[in-house]
Amino acid sequence: MVIRIDELSDVPIYQQIRNQIVMGISGGELKAGEQLPTVRALALEMGINTMTVSKAYQLLKTEGYIMTDRKNGARIRTEIKKRGEIPAADISELKRILSEARLSGVEKSRIIDLVEECYK
Amino acid sequence: MVIRIDELSDVPIYQQIRNQIVMGISGGELKAGEQLPTVRALALEMGINTMTVSKAYQLLKTEGYIMTDRKNGARIRTEIKKRGEIPAADISELKRILSEARLSGVEKSRIIDLVEECYK
Repeated sequence: MVIRIDELSDVPIYQQIRNQIVMGISGGELKAGEQLPTVRALALEMGINTMTVSKAYQLLKTEGYIMTDRKNGARIRTEIKKRGEIPAADISELKRILSEARLSGVEKSRIIDLVEECYK
Repeated sequence: MVIRIDELSDVPIYQQIRNQIVMGISGGELKAGEQLPTVRALALEMGINTMTVSKAYQLLKTEGYIMTDRKNGARIRTEIKKRGEIPAADISELKRILSEARLSGVEKSRIIDLVEECYK
């Protein structure tokens, strides 16, 4: 899986790494139990600071997406915790995006297509 | 319309003001042609810097949501530009939110309900 950083984005790089790994899991590119590159290897590959990668991995670990151990490094968890709810900040953001899309004349069917694509 | 700032949010305050005004327009709380408070009045009411409010209004103006003139101050535009598309950054964010919701075991119907709510 290739992680792409958008240098122009407002989203901090560690958050971009975290987001792409989560989307990789959701999209099936990253399988349960799959090994992630070491912090050092990923930092080197991406040309960024090891602290940034470490921060992303730490967040993924706290959120229950990955597990780490000294021997095997970081791997995708087999059982990802099902909170069963959308975090409040994401609901706000979702509503903002949808409100703006509607104001911009984006058809509801376009949104439904995006939902279907993510849920297929 | 009451604008509420979340001090704990990662979203900058000027962006929160901008977002809430856009959502107010989308939700029908703010009508076309409606007058917004002056920068000074809103800053005073919210207990924030006038520069912050000014930055929000400037953004709303650039984006075509409001118009300003010396005599009448800021008002909601009668004709809001229909770009007819979702900005790329919002599509990425939408996909991230949906991917995480799905991983968290959130039902697709919950998302569809949120879409319907924003589009009603």
